[in-house]
This record gives sequence, C-alpha cells and structure tokens, in this order.
Amino acid sequence: MAQRVGIVGFRGYSGAELVKILEGHPGVEPVLLEHRQDVGEVRFARSRRVACTPESVRSEGLALVFLATPAEVSMDLAPWLLEAGAKVVDLSGAFRLRTAERHLQWYKEVHTQTALLAEAAYGLPEFYRDCVRPARLVANPGCYPTAANLAIRPLVDAGVIDRQAGIVCDAKSGVSGAGRKPSLKTSFCEVAENFSAYSLLNHRHVPEVLLNSGLEESEFSFTAHLLPLDRGILETVYFRSTRPGGSLELVELYRKRYEGEPFVRVYDPDQMPDLRAVQRTNYCDIGVKLDAATGRGIVVSAIDNLVKGAAGQAVQNMNLMLGFAETEGLL
Amino acid sequence: MAQRVGIVGFRGYSGAELVKILEGHPGVEPVLLEHRQDVGEVRFARSRRVACTPESVRSEGLALVFLATPAEVSMDLAPWLLEAGAKVVDLSGAFRLRTAERHLQWYKEVHTQTALLAEAAYGLPEFYRDCVRPARLVANPGCYPTAANLAIRPLVDAGVIDRQAGIVCDAKSGVSGAGRKPSLKTSFCEVAENFSAYSLLNHRHVPEVLLNSGLEESEFSFTAHLLPLDRGILETVYFRSTRPGGSLELVELYRKRYEGEPFVRVYDPDQMPDLRAVQRTNYCDIGVKLDAATGRGIVVSAIDNLVKGAAGQAVQNMNLMLGFAETEGLL
Amino acid sequence: MAQRVGIVGFRGYSGAELVKILEGHPGVEPVLLEHRQDVGEVRFARSRRVACTPESVRSEGLALVFLATPAEVSMDLAPWLLEAGAKVVDLSGAFRLRTAERHLQWYKEVHTQTALLAEAAYGLPEFYRDCVRPARLVANPGCYPTAANLAIRPLVDAGVIDRQAGIVCDAKSGVSGAGRKPSLKTSFCEVAENFSAYSLLNHRHVPEVLLNSGLEESEFSFTAHLLPLDRGILETVYFRSTRPGGSLELVELYRKRYEGEPFVRVYDPDQMPDLRAVQRTNYCDIGVKLDAATGRGIVVSAIDNLVKGAAGQAVQNMNLMLGFAETEGLL
Amino acid sequence: MAQRVGIVGFRGYSGAELVKILEGHPGVEPVLLEHRQDVGEVRFARSRRVACTPESVRSEGLALVFLATPAEVSMDLAPWLLEAGAKVVDLSGAFRLRTAERHLQWYKEVHTQTALLAEAAYGLPEFYRDCVRPARLVANPGCYPTAANLAIRPLVDAGVIDRQAGIVCDAKSGVSGAGRKPSLKTSFCEVAENFSAYSLLNHRHVPEVLLNSGLEESEFSFTAHLLPLDRGILETVYFRSTRPGGSLELVELYRKRYEGEPFVRVYDPDQMPDLRAVQRTNYCDIGVKLDAATGRGIVVSAIDNLVKGAAGQAVQNMNLMLGFAETEGLL
Repeated sequence: MAQRVGIVGFRGYSGAELVKILEGHPGVEPVLLEHRQDVGEVRFARSRRVACTPESVRSEGLALVFLATPAEVSMDLAPWLLEAGAKVVDLSGAFRLRTAERHLQWYKEVHTQTALLAEAAYGLPEFYRDCVRPARLVANPGCYPTAANLAIRPLVDAGVIDRQAGIVCDAKSGVSGAGRKPSLKTSFCEVAENFSAYSLLNHRHVPEVLLNSGLEESEFSFTAHLLPLDRGILETVYFRSTRPGGSLELVELYRKRYEGEPFVRVYDPDQMPDLRAVQRTNYCDIGVKLDAATGRGIVVSAIDNLVKGAAGQAVQNMNLMLGFAETEGLL
Repeated sequence: MAQRVGIVGFRGYSGAELVKILEGHPGVEPVLLEHRQDVGEVRFARSRRVACTPESVRSEGLALVFLATPAEVSMDLAPWLLEAGAKVVDLSGAFRLRTAERHLQWYKEVHTQTALLAEAAYGLPEFYRDCVRPARLVANPGCYPTAANLAIRPLVDAGVIDRQAGIVCDAKSGVSGAGRKPSLKTSFCEVAENFSAYSLLNHRHVPEVLLNSGLEESEFSFTAHLLPLDRGILETVYFRSTRPGGSLELVELYRKRYEGEPFVRVYDPDQMPDLRAVQRTNYCDIGVKLDAATGRGIVVSAIDNLVKGAAGQAVQNMNLMLGFAETEGLL
Repeated sequence: MAQRVGIVGFRGYSGAELVKILEGHPGVEPVLLEHRQDVGEVRFARSRRVACTPESVRSEGLALVFLATPAEVSMDLAPWLLEAGAKVVDLSGAFRLRTAERHLQWYKEVHTQTALLAEAAYGLPEFYRDCVRPARLVANPGCYPTAANLAIRPLVDAGVIDRQAGIVCDAKSGVSGAGRKPSLKTSFCEVAENFSAYSLLNHRHVPEVLLNSGLEESEFSFTAHLLPLDRGILETVYFRSTRPGGSLELVELYRKRYEGEPFVRVYDPDQMPDLRAVQRTNYCDIGVKLDAATGRGIVVSAIDNLVKGAAGQAVQNMNLMLGFAETEGLL
Repeated sequence: MAQRVGIVGFRGYSGAELVKILEGHPGVEPVLLEHRQDVGEVRFARSRRVACTPESVRSEGLALVFLATPAEVSMDLAPWLLEAGAKVVDLSGAFRLRTAERHLQWYKEVHTQTALLAEAAYGLPEFYRDCVRPARLVANPGCYPTAANLAIRPLVDAGVIDRQAGIVCDAKSGVSGAGRKPSLKTSFCEVAENFSAYSLLNHRHVPEVLLNSGLEESEFSFTAHLLPLDRGILETVYFRSTRPGGSLELVELYRKRYEGEPFVRVYDPDQMPDLRAVQRTNYCDIGVKLDAATGRGIVVSAIDNLVKGAAGQAVQNMNLMLGFAETEGLL
C-alpha cells in the first residue's frame, strides 16, 4: 500500500517538479499542503490538497513531508512536522551548514533551530547514503553544490589536487534555479540573449562545497553565471594534478569511485556532457580532460538543477528514508 | 542649435529605446525627467536628469515631452506639460480612442481629460501626417494597431475586401511589448520555449484598428499571441478579395499606396517579412499573397514593437511636430 | 511476452522520440534498423541495432516497423516490409493523400506504390480508430493536420461553420518540425529571436486537412509560421458560426465530441492552451472563444509536434494495431 | 572624398556585419567582392558588387580589402590583393601566429605564405596600435583572444599573477562565432536550451592568447563553451595575486592601463559586465573581483564576437591604417 507524503511549496518550480515525480512514483501518494500562495497556480496536478497543519499531517498519516520553501519557512515548519510524526526533506538552505555560526556568516540570519541544524543529514546519497537512511531530517543539497561535489570530491579523496594552486569552479545555471517569484533579474527580456556572472567568490552555496569536499575557502574560487535557458547546471572545474597520467587515468578514477551509482554517468575521454543529456533526468554526467605533460586538469559536470539539483535528489533521499529502491520513480 | 526634449518613464523598455534614439539624433538634446522609479535603472544613458515639474520644464525650455508612462500617469501629466509650453507625444493608450465612451468601454476607466482626448492627433504618419504636424498633443499608436493598420487600411481604402466574410488578424508579439514591470507572465521560465494566445477578440488595441481602418467590430477578429523573443511583432491578416487579380496586383496596390514612404517596405510576391529584418529599425515590412482563383488573400506585416511600434514612431512624430526631416535620427 | 518492433530513421527527431517512447513501453522491444546515416548519432538508446533487410525483419520476428524516413524512402521500404510480415506505420507523407493524382499535385512526385496508397489507413485515432485497428499500413498524420483536424472537424461535423465566409487556420510550429538535417533555415542564428511566415496557402499539409475535415480548398486559408523554439505546434482557427450561443455552448460541443478520448483536453471558456502544457505529452489541448453577438469564433489547439504530431501518435496507432491499450506507454 | 574598400565573404556573419558598419562609415565606400557563394544571401546591403579579381581591385581603386574568409582562402587572396595595391585586413586565423611552425601545430596545415605571415601586424589596437598604423597586412584577432588578452595582459604586464598557480580562462560564446555554414552543431534544435563545453585545452585560439599576453602554455587553462544565444562572448579569468590589495586596487590597475581607450569600459567594483551591454557595440567591458585576504582574483570580460571580436575591430584597424579617427563609424 502506498505511503502518503506531503509537499509544502508545490507551486514553485522545485515543488511542481516534486509533484510530477511523486505522482508517477508507484510507492507513494502525494498530498499537497496549502501554506501560502504567492507564485501562481500549478497545472495538471491530480493530488489532493489539505491545509498544512499538525492536525492534517496526523490525520493524513504523512510518512514524510518535503519542504520546497524559503529557508525561514522551513525553520518554522520543520520542528512541528517532526513532532507530528513526519520525516522531513528540506529543499532550502536552512539545514545545510551544520553550525549556527556558519549559517549566520553565509545566510546573514540567526538560525532558530540549532538542534535540528546539528541533527540534519546532508542528502547527497553518493557520499552520505548511510546517514540519510536512518535520518528524520534531511537537508537536500543545493543545486550548485550537487554538481560541484560530485565533480570535486573524487579528486580530493584521491589526493590528486595540487592544493597550493587552488581549484576553480566556473558554474552556469538556467533561470529556474532562481525560483518562480517574479523579479526583474529573471524577466524574459533581461535574460534572453544575455549571459552574466554573479556572486563572485561569495555565493552562499560555497560553504556547502567546502564542507562536503574538504577544501578550504582560500583554495576554492567559485563564480555563478546565469544562462538564458530554463533548466540545467554545467560546472567546469579546473585543477592541477600532482599525479602522473592523463585523461584515461582520470576517467578511471571517476569510474571506480562511481561504480554502481545509478545516477552518475562518467563519459569516455574527449566526450563532454551537455545540458540536453541531463534535462528532466536525475543524472549527473561527468567528463574529464587531463594534460599529462603539464598536469592541467578539467572536470565538467552537468545536472538538471530542478531534478538532481532539487526535486529528483529529494525523492532519491525519500526512497532511502522510506525503504524504497533508491531509483524508484526516477528512471 | 539643438532643441531640448524631455522623456518621462525613461527606465521602461520604450523609454530606454527613446533615450537611445534621441541621444543619436543630431537636432535634439534629450533630458530625462525623473518621475517615479519602479523598474530598475537604465544603463549608459548620458543625458542629464531633472525632476519632472512645471518649473523644470520651463527652465529647461523643453520643446516637447515624451510620456512613456501608464495611461493614468499620462492623463495626470499631459495637461500641465502643455500648459508649461511643451508639446506632448504620449506613448500610452490615454489619448488614442477619441471619445470618453470608447475609452471607458475598452480601458474600463473614466477618462479625466476629455478635451485633450478630443484634441489629440493620432500619430500614424503614413495616414495622419498632416494632423500630426501642427498638433500640440499626439497619441502615439499602439504596437499591434501600427502593424495592423499599415497592413489593412490600403485594402479598405481600395475597397477590395469582402466585408461579409470578415477579416482576421492573427498577431504575435515579443515579450518587451508587455513592459518592464516584473510579472509571472513575463518571467523567463514561463515564456521561454512557450507560445500562447491571449485576449481573444477583446484586446484593447482592437478599437484603435477599427477607428483608423474603417472596419466594424463585427467584421474583425483579432487574437494576440506571446512569442518567446524580446522584440518584434508579426501579424498575418486574412481576407477575401472582391477583385480579379493575384499577388502581383496586390503588391502593386501596396506599392502605390506607400510610394515615397520612408519606413514602409513592400516585398516582392513570394518573399515574406520576418522579425530579423525589422528589429532595431523603424521599418514596417509588408508581404502579400493572393490566390487569383478563389480570392483568398493574406497580408503579413512586421515591425519592431519598441521602434515603429513605440519609440521610433514617437520620434518620427516629433520630427514632424518640431520641423525636422521625418527620418532624422531614424535611419 | 514483449513483441518486437523496428524503427527505421531512428536518428532523426521523430525517430529518436519513437525510440524513447518505445523503450519505456512495457509491451514491446524496439529494434533499431540501420538504413542510412546522415544526421549524427542518437544518444542513450539502449536498443539493439540490426541491418534493415527482409532477412533481419524475418529473423527478428518484427510485428511492426515504424518508418521515420523521407517519403521516397518510405515508398521503397513499405512494400517489402509488409511482404516480410511486418505491419507498417509510416511517419512520412508518402501514404496520406489516398490518390496518386493528389500526391502528384501536392508533393510534385509520381507515386510508385499506388495500391498501398489506396490501402493505407489514416492514423488519426480520434476519427479513424476502427480503420486503424485492422490495418497493415497506417499513414501517420502530419503534425499540422493533427492539430488542425482535431480543432476543425467537430465544427464541420456539427455544421456550425458559415462556409461562405471560409475558415482560417494560422499555424505556428517549433523548429524540430523541419527535421534534423542541417540547413540555413534551421540554423540557430537564423531562427533565434526571429519569427516568420512560410508556405502561404500552398503547404503540402493542406490537402490532409481538407481530406479529413470535409472542407473545400477554396474555403480554407492556411499559413505556417516558424517559432523560435524546439517543439510544439499551436494553431489558431477562425470561423463564423451559424448557430446561436457563445463560448459555453462551443466548449460543450467539443467536450461531447471528445468524451472518453484519452489524449484530447478541452479547456474551460477563457482558459487557453499553451505549448508548455503539451510538450513531451501526447495530448492535444483545445480552447475556444465564441462571440454570441456576432458569431465570430476562434479555436486554439496545441500539440507537441514530435509526440501527438509524430512519434506519440505513431505509438498510439501501434497500440491499436497490435492490440495494446491505446494509452500504453504514452501517459 | 570617400575611399573605396572591398569585402570578400560578405555573406557570412562577420562579413555582413562589416557591410553594415561600413555602409554607415562616412569616410569609405564599401564594394562587395564576389568570390564564392555558399551561405545564402545578405539582405538590404546597398553597396555595389564586383568580381574579386586583380583587375577590379585596380579599376575600383580599392584602398583596402577585408577578408572575411576561411584561412585557406585568405592565404590565396592576400598576396595578389597586396600586389594590386590594396592593404588587407584578414579576419581569419591565417596570419595570426607569426611562424609557420606554430601555424602547423595549431591549424594542422602547412602555411603557404610565410613571408606575409612574418610581416603581418596583429590587430589588437589597445596593444599594437603603432604596428597597425603603417601595416600593409593586419591579422584581425580571434574573438576569444580579444576578450582574453584585454582581460589578462594588464595582469601580466603588472606582474601581479602567481605564475605557479596558473591562470584559468573559462570562455563562453554565442553561436554566430561558429560561422554561417549550416551544421548539426549549430542547428537550432541542438543548441536551444542547451549548453556545452568544447575544445578543452586545445582550442586553436590558445596560442593567440599566449603569444600576445606572454603566458606559457603550461600556465594557461582554456575551455570554450557554446551559449544558446546569437552573439556575445563572456570570459571569466581566474588567477592568484601576488600583491596586497583588493578589488579597488585591481579596478585602478585596469583603469590606468585603459585610460583614454575608446572601446574599453572598466566597471566599478561589484558591478559585472553582461552580454546585453556590449551586443552590437565595439566595446569590451571589464569587471573585477579580488579577495584581499587570500589573493583569489577574477576578471570578467565581455564583447560582441561579431563586432569587437571581428568586424568592429577590423574597422578599428582600417581606421588606423587609412588615417581616420579610430572610432569613426563605430560609436
């Protein structure tokens, strides 16, 4: 029998994507939790709607609730949802940074739920699967850090990076990453035929990359860019290798690291990922290049920011937390 | 010596386009009139900025002021601007419909300046040049009606349309036509890769077409569509001809009607306009097709909604009102 | 046990879409039939590849073969595929026009398989389901005619159109409708930020609309336009109604006609379809508007040209021909 | 009196842009030199057309000829054009790399005009103005190297880069950079909504950057990416600074270096360039960020690849070679 799961914030882009995935998931029955409405309606969702209250969470018997809400709303809702017996997967940045100090530094706001912040598991299954399974509260990773950490951490773990030279992550994202709330920055006429850099060195996704890859801030340069397209993130990572060997050896390193991973595809040398190949999928595609003579290395990773970068990964985490096959509803 | 002209609403898309054209016009010195700021800043404008007050209009000696403002703001500003000695070209719908009844019917608001409404000249130079030249107040045509009337009126004037069968105008516009104020409807992720119809039969530009072409509402079906691109309008007009002859004769009709017009280009039969050819120009391009056997006729017209559909035509009107060559600053 | 079906032309846009749908269809095992390669490779297809020969069709035991090929290739392949025991769904125009005269007139080529042309069923299930089920050879409808006939035929059948006034179909298509073969007309820099009309009155899809709707050529004006987007067709149909009643009555007419149809969605009055709602689905969405006072009527229909306009409808036809549920693999 | 200048390859994107600029240049009369036609026609060009032969170059009295042609065609034409008395600005890569060895290494072809290769001036006026003025033959820089060298060379000249750590240039270009010849890679449906990396570490524009910036290949990592838009290049350059100071000091360094340069705009700290600001202009916009604490530095440069990256810069070079004001026809 299907387990019931709730979605708060189902009208945003990540929330609507969640609804779509969950309505096709054979093991769950999604319930839309009405909280506030601010960004238009969502079309063609067939799921029932109930108010987002402790009573309805209990009477519906929700096993898990997804929060596709701003960080401050997630901090408000998570405590009583857990108390009402639902597990929580939070898609905001509220529970990602582990300590209140770090949260204050990067989000410029005091964290109101420090015990939950300490408790939350970081939902990047390829690296934290065993923490996610038993967790009550999972912080779903940011879109940029998902693509970055899947690209960077195998290098750090293998010790092949020249840390002195530092590592560069040049990231490009489609517009849906900015959410559905109308703003001049995401207006069609400002974005179409345009391309720009933003948040140089101080994007709030940086600490998520550092925390989960083991890099120091001084070693890591990150720039976000806005692509004139709807969905997709591509990141180009530059490093200096301390090891002999070229592209073939580097491919091998990634293939070994991600062996058996259902959602990571490592390309042959000289093939490179693009956004088309990952849009509307939960895949992270990875291509590499390493110049054997000089040690200059490049890793390119691509995901759909709304799927592997948000709703898809959230369902992947739910599958682990509720005991489904990890790929259920995602292939 | 250059005459000074003012621009209110210079941060919107039409207003910014006006600034760009006027800063390249050898006969005028533009002055930006600060009124309200609500849609971000305009970049790279070199012109001076002063407050939009009767005093500054007088002290600057403004010969003419452009209103790139909402209709209600235009109704507020026009009277005292005229009193302060400036001519006015209004880019809103405030002074286009000639009677207060018609304005109430289509704009759902009571007109507060009915004397000015009656006085205003309709600024479609190809048909009303002689009214525009001496006017104090010019209502700059809407973008859709500009492309529609340039396509339709030669047919009406020549009496070739089967009025019983009616006339269809299927219009498609880029997003900048909706203005710069952020909204969900003009958000990148809602518009990109999308296309939709809106305002079927009841678009407020319809009465402008009727008034200036001589068609009756019952004879005219109009639908607006939103194109996933920044700028440009293309309209496809369908009619039944009552005359013998085919495409060649129809081209001839248009060529004769627009002989000497600097901003209308009539294409050879079997060539068709596209948006690329008119973007960032003040041209209206026209292509036609007429099936001699059955009388089915099609006229395609294309303009840049921000130029011939707004700022360019406004400057064309200014040129007439201030005694410049009609094409000055526009080629 | 899964039945095997073949696909010729799997590298084109329609062919690749077919592969994707069929690889998710629980009742069939797709086999890629290598014929000629001219448009690059298709990525991530997991299906086996064999040569496209009578031997392999027999040894593979193919129950049905899809031809996503040019018309002349379809004419070559269809006879021996049928002889080898496979049913055929042809996505080209080769078998759509019923008579050799008509084919010659519109395709400017002599038909080489006139017996098969006469035999072929026209695969628009909403109108020809009973002919499709027993057919050996199905002509899959063109993309424009699919959207046009689903919009127009209920009007014709109900006798509500003023035939004297004629009917207008203004059609807009995404670029994938032009196929995958590189050409200047479909180059990114020619299409992006552009919009244009083509094939006024003489598009080869016109006779398909006439044949299956019962209109005369002299009554029907059709223009195709190229949208700067990948996939989707939206058609705006204009007519004059001979019946009393307004939008509500017209919605009712369509709802009754399409009751029980799994792939047609009729919108409430004043809601209008857009491309986003149908992309990557097999739906045809329909919205209507009728002015009760004057009888001016508008019908807007939207499909994904590669799904309901090609591959999806082809699978719908296959489902009928092989005895699957009509929606299998398509929801 | 206007000097006559010729354009070979006027149907390509760079060539057509040249025609547009030159038709608005008060000091020259452009003549279109017919060579081969392979990419469709160019619309609205008013200039005369003559055959591209030594006779016509002489009889027309061409002072200068632009070659907007492939490298192999430029090598064929340059010698006899110079002999016929015309100066040459070549927009291809034929004369950029100074030695035949380097040309062979990166272009994989034997250079047939080594004397001219040695003679050619590199037309980046901001650094080589004095060589361009007296030159007979100018190699117009590649689009990527223009944006790269304007960003990088002030850093190299000032000695602020930690050369051990290397320098990264992550470059993104619109599709027009790939030329007008149709190909699958530049087809609308392959590019729209897509983004991809290509030519990692081995792009043939790399040696141009190295030669003119003074970097070694081992110090420089370059990746090109294809943006889903028509025109514009944005490059994000990462380095480690060896100097104290932050963003303000870095802005100062660039402002001093480019003082008086008419086509370089250095932004205030925390402002960043985007493509909209440079499209259809000859500007290169530059923004910087430097973290004082760790020395991580970023420079963002943006140009229009068809203007400052091709036709505009070519006219800038022509202005220097023929004695016009450097900005003539370009503002």
